[in-house]
Amino acid sequence: MKGWSVFAVLLALVWSSPLTAQSRLDHRQIRAASLTHNIVGMSPMRGVTVYLPSGYDTSGKRYPVIYFLNNFKETETAPFDNSDAQTVFDAGIAQGAIGGVIVVTADFSTPLGSSWYVNSPVTGNWQDFMVTELVPYIDAHYRTLASSASRGIAGDRMGGYGALRFGMTNPETFGAVYALHPVGTGAGVQTMHSRPDWGRLQGAPSLKDFEGDLFGGIFLSIYQAHLPDPTRPPLYVDLPARRENGRLAVDDAQTARLIGNFLLVNQLPKHAGGLKRLRGLKFDWGRNDGNYDHVLSNQAFAHMLDEYGVPHEAEEYHGGWGDRVWGADGRVATDLLPFFSRTLVFQ
Amino acid sequence: MKGWSVFAVLLALVWSSPLTAQSRLDHRQIRAASLTHNIVGMSPMRGVTVYLPSGYDTSGKRYPVIYFLNNFKETETAPFDNSDAQTVFDAGIAQGAIGGVIVVTADFSTPLGSSWYVNSPVTGNWQDFMVTELVPYIDAHYRTLASSASRGIAGDRMGGYGALRFGMTNPETFGAVYALHPVGTGAGVQTMHSRPDWGRLQGAPSLKDFEGDLFGGIFLSIYQAHLPDPTRPPLYVDLPARRENGRLAVDDAQTARLIGNFLLVNQLPKHAGGLKRLRGLKFDWGRNDGNYDHVLSNQAFAHMLDEYGVPHEAEEYHGGWGDRVWGADGRVATDLLPFFSRTLVFQ
Amino acid sequence: MKGWSVFAVLLALVWSSPLTAQSRLDHRQIRAASLTHNIVGMSPMRGVTVYLPSGYDTSGKRYPVIYFLNNFKETETAPFDNSDAQTVFDAGIAQGAIGGVIVVTADFSTPLGSSWYVNSPVTGNWQDFMVTELVPYIDAHYRTLASSASRGIAGDRMGGYGALRFGMTNPETFGAVYALHPVGTGAGVQTMHSRPDWGRLQGAPSLKDFEGDLFGGIFLSIYQAHLPDPTRPPLYVDLPARRENGRLAVDDAQTARLIGNFLLVNQLPKHAGGLKRLRGLKFDWGRNDGNYDHVLSNQAFAHMLDEYGVPHEAEEYHGGWGDRVWGADGRVATDLLPFFSRTLVFQ
Amino acid sequence: MKGWSVFAVLLALVWSSPLTAQSRLDHRQIRAASLTHNIVGMSPMRGVTVYLPSGYDTSGKRYPVIYFLNNFKETETAPFDNSDAQTVFDAGIAQGAIGGVIVVTADFSTPLGSSWYVNSPVTGNWQDFMVTELVPYIDAHYRTLASSASRGIAGDRMGGYGALRFGMTNPETFGAVYALHPVGTGAGVQTMHSRPDWGRLQGAPSLKDFEGDLFGGIFLSIYQAHLPDPTRPPLYVDLPARRENGRLAVDDAQTARLIGNFLLVNQLPKHAGGLKRLRGLKFDWGRNDGNYDHVLSNQAFAHMLDEYGVPHEAEEYHGGWGDRVWGADGRVATDLLPFFSRTLVFQ
Repeated sequence: MKGWSVFAVLLALVWSSPLTAQSRLDHRQIRAASLTHNIVGMSPMRGVTVYLPSGYDTSGKRYPVIYFLNNFKETETAPFDNSDAQTVFDAGIAQGAIGGVIVVTADFSTPLGSSWYVNSPVTGNWQDFMVTELVPYIDAHYRTLASSASRGIAGDRMGGYGALRFGMTNPETFGAVYALHPVGTGAGVQTMHSRPDWGRLQGAPSLKDFEGDLFGGIFLSIYQAHLPDPTRPPLYVDLPARRENGRLAVDDAQTARLIGNFLLVNQLPKHAGGLKRLRGLKFDWGRNDGNYDHVLSNQAFAHMLDEYGVPHEAEEYHGGWGDRVWGADGRVATDLLPFFSRTLVFQ
Repeated sequence: MKGWSVFAVLLALVWSSPLTAQSRLDHRQIRAASLTHNIVGMSPMRGVTVYLPSGYDTSGKRYPVIYFLNNFKETETAPFDNSDAQTVFDAGIAQGAIGGVIVVTADFSTPLGSSWYVNSPVTGNWQDFMVTELVPYIDAHYRTLASSASRGIAGDRMGGYGALRFGMTNPETFGAVYALHPVGTGAGVQTMHSRPDWGRLQGAPSLKDFEGDLFGGIFLSIYQAHLPDPTRPPLYVDLPARRENGRLAVDDAQTARLIGNFLLVNQLPKHAGGLKRLRGLKFDWGRNDGNYDHVLSNQAFAHMLDEYGVPHEAEEYHGGWGDRVWGADGRVATDLLPFFSRTLVFQ
Repeated sequence: MKGWSVFAVLLALVWSSPLTAQSRLDHRQIRAASLTHNIVGMSPMRGVTVYLPSGYDTSGKRYPVIYFLNNFKETETAPFDNSDAQTVFDAGIAQGAIGGVIVVTADFSTPLGSSWYVNSPVTGNWQDFMVTELVPYIDAHYRTLASSASRGIAGDRMGGYGALRFGMTNPETFGAVYALHPVGTGAGVQTMHSRPDWGRLQGAPSLKDFEGDLFGGIFLSIYQAHLPDPTRPPLYVDLPARRENGRLAVDDAQTARLIGNFLLVNQLPKHAGGLKRLRGLKFDWGRNDGNYDHVLSNQAFAHMLDEYGVPHEAEEYHGGWGDRVWGADGRVATDLLPFFSRTLVFQ
Repeated sequence: MKGWSVFAVLLALVWSSPLTAQSRLDHRQIRAASLTHNIVGMSPMRGVTVYLPSGYDTSGKRYPVIYFLNNFKETETAPFDNSDAQTVFDAGIAQGAIGGVIVVTADFSTPLGSSWYVNSPVTGNWQDFMVTELVPYIDAHYRTLASSASRGIAGDRMGGYGALRFGMTNPETFGAVYALHPVGTGAGVQTMHSRPDWGRLQGAPSLKDFEGDLFGGIFLSIYQAHLPDPTRPPLYVDLPARRENGRLAVDDAQTARLIGNFLLVNQLPKHAGGLKRLRGLKFDWGRNDGNYDHVLSNQAFAHMLDEYGVPHEAEEYHGGWGDRVWGADGRVATDLLPFFSRTLVFQ
């Protein structure tokens, strides 16, 4: 309550001042060479949105950058169109929660909903796109502080997964990581193979069959990222299970491959060292998530970070799936911006 | 890491400036009429420490007040003597995490370690002491903003228990509550009766037998607060169980009384309404606590707050029992002060 | 796998033997005086099914009795019609898992789905019906061992709730209790008030509006049992919350009443002593339940039983909601029958 | 209560009958070639105890065999000397919970307490000892049913770890597995590196320094099994962490090796298929274990078995660490023997 009224007063101040330059959004399209080999008919032209803080056009100074990864099926404009991201960034900067900062979003969606931010022979090399194309492009076209110490990565749910993953694999690019309610960090009680419709997966004549199939689409996007098989049209994946004679037969080898590639807890043996090089690592999740496996998975991931001695913050907070991201008392305002304020170098 | 260096720079600035008035601690002794009837030989003279922020002596203005309740066996000076409370408050105010604020601690300890902040015919009326004596005393002797909207209560572990309890029973006095790692909120896996030495409890010739008996002392202090019986020297309690012929017999009626009085989750049917009147309610706990029951209890308490529709924040964070309270990245600095900044009225 | 083949062989033996008298089901209708005051238009005629073991008609001896309470919306014939209850009892007796035993089911359903096995001015006095009518009727009409030592009570899910409740309130009638996957034992993460459609609850012109409304019907049946108000047609309940101006306002007093009456963990202060008088108490639940609150609730209930020192068995097993009750490797066969074999007196 | 009286009556019957041949224990010493290369000064002579059921000497028939692995520091006679294993087996057979069965224990202890049942260049090849020496020896010297379908493996705590491990790696030898309260199945909240005294580990002049050091001994035995290094006297291990300048530095590579080798959840990618070949797999654990990490670990292991589609039973029961193994209502009597009765072939 109170938070919003302070916020409202502050916004009134911000917006009423003729002396205050407004923040603005810059929309671009860039051609991603890393994605041209995709075989799912996806254009390599990718939308990018750049939040430039108040004063950017006149200050002449360089700014740190936060890359913000979206949730499943969301494109680069989602935080600005569907939520109040620009207002939240403006207010956070105006209130001093963080200094002036550039925020970048980009379109990491695939026809099925998400690239899961990894290189795939089926959907394109999304890790490469980020590290070798998008970041250099932003550094070339904007006045950034172009070093990992001033470059953070964050994301919301599936985007939180991506943020943690980039922190593991590319700590030389991103110096600090904040994941909001990440998925795919570990295993829960309900199995992955209990979710999709195996009849559809085994018999689908085309990818279009998964439009409107929530779990089918999610899991097929996971398989295209983590169990890709370019030789197997139309889905281009190896399946980790098959329904035969009314029973589900789990394929041990493909399950091991899926769990090894996908679940972040299983990437720690290889990449714990990357996380230790970060200037800061934080993630959070809501304990009231209707899918309790998200809670159990994040708890398990936090425990294993401890086992490897990875410094981190991990907060389980009061809230459900996706309901406290934006807004004046959302986690971006109360936790994410102050985190990057503490962990990034601003000059 | 980075947090501390910013902190150090800031402190250097604070301390080096000849223009900055220092904060200071004011030590008092007050005679608590509410405690004179105690039968455990405890003096009603109680130490009080008052943190007065930088500028207090010259500003002429009125300040909000945070009452901070200590952990088991700690007296009013503990946060200042054993930890860096004054530095943390100074830095929080200097960094703008919170405006100028008075912080009050007092000696709520009993011979066994804690009053548990309740009225007891055995150890004294501690709730009354707080509400009818200490708060009026502070408002009379210092330039406070003397209303609940500007008066917060907080505490560390056993003190966190007290803070939540005062929020339930005295929302007209305290407008906002922050409990750090509270105990006694609910039940865990290990039973309360599994902890004490029942032979000692049943046969102790005097209270002195419990010096050096950690669990015995803790549970006996709980019984003196929540199962008091002034007619039964030397312990002045009813026991919720007895060991007889090698077996422990749990007393249902006394257990119901203990669990009903002590565990905060069982105070909600009577006092949820009090918590709803608060301007803010937050508590937190570390998931790595060696006593996992503290974790389970706080999770259960958070769930029941939801059932009653009590707005609250409840964060489970990375850390163990008592290891992230003070310091530049302790929860007081990162969460408690910003919380009271948002929830108290500063003018 | 193996279980079923042994089972099949055994059944073949059982069924092929000309010397083996078959078990049989006796169907009755009894008029329940305890239910005549109900104001929801429910007939007091109640179906009862009695399983009589092989040999009953010729042996001349007396048998112990297990009362088995059904799940939501199920009537007395459900275990026999929809599952293989008779086969499971036959095989359990033939294999020696339990001696000859009578099993009784009855129709505890209401128009909304369940009586919750309690006395209510709205739906009838179901506790009385069981204890003062059904049990005496069975003892009068069948050759039972008519004492609590030879009388057990069990139930499936909502019926498991009833079994635990009768064990608390009527240990002089039922000597042993087995609850399969009980609900309503404690609180979980998702609140009760998050489930129903409040618009419908507040505006329903008649009880019929809840046909086909799963959560609405369940919660309304809970309110008719635990928040009854005969003066308030058409639902005859007090609501524990109201949606007003787009927000849900939880009613503290009705919530305290609901939680106090309904959740079994809150009946323990009054009824732990009843459970201690039992010859045996066991309950179980599946950890893969899609509603994880069932898991958390049963864990919390088990913990509180320990706090009161109530001897009990509580097993969390591999399985989901309702999927391992019957069948050769269901919990009735592997756990429930052996439990009553151990705890009831058979002569 | 009742269980024991039936048990007592039954034992009285068993013992009073002049016609009933008694069961007996056969004690042997065998020389383990697989252990001769050990470099910790351990004799390759290993004690073996064989329980031969009542009637073995006269029946002439062949029996299934259960190999029972002991807990930490226990030798082959522990279940018989310290507990009532022989009585429990006798009663289980007499009551029909299981048919006549041979039970074998052997000395798997090392100077530090346990071999952890694996091959090690430091402590000997214990897996080989079991599979290539002990099992053939038993089959050669006793009238066994010498196939995996009639050969089970079980164990208590550390022995439960071993039983699960043999089930993974040697399903062609052991057809069914029951693990009582296994350890090392997954990760908990308290890290492994938080337990040992690193000063002692880094500076110990000899293995003898760990006598009387509970956690030091346990973790050093784990390292000798899973992080062995024969070139590094006197401990012959690689350490997964080092304390330097007052801080603990976790070694990522050795931690990955330790976690990968030791924790059974991480053996599933390689060995889930082995578990699927079993005729039966069950494990259990007590929810009141003072070390809650044992609970969390087993829950996590159960979840991952589901992910691989491994059929299994996993029961969390009412009880603490090691307090319900033997006795008439211990898990061996109530669950383990019936399990092997269902899963092994007895003829």
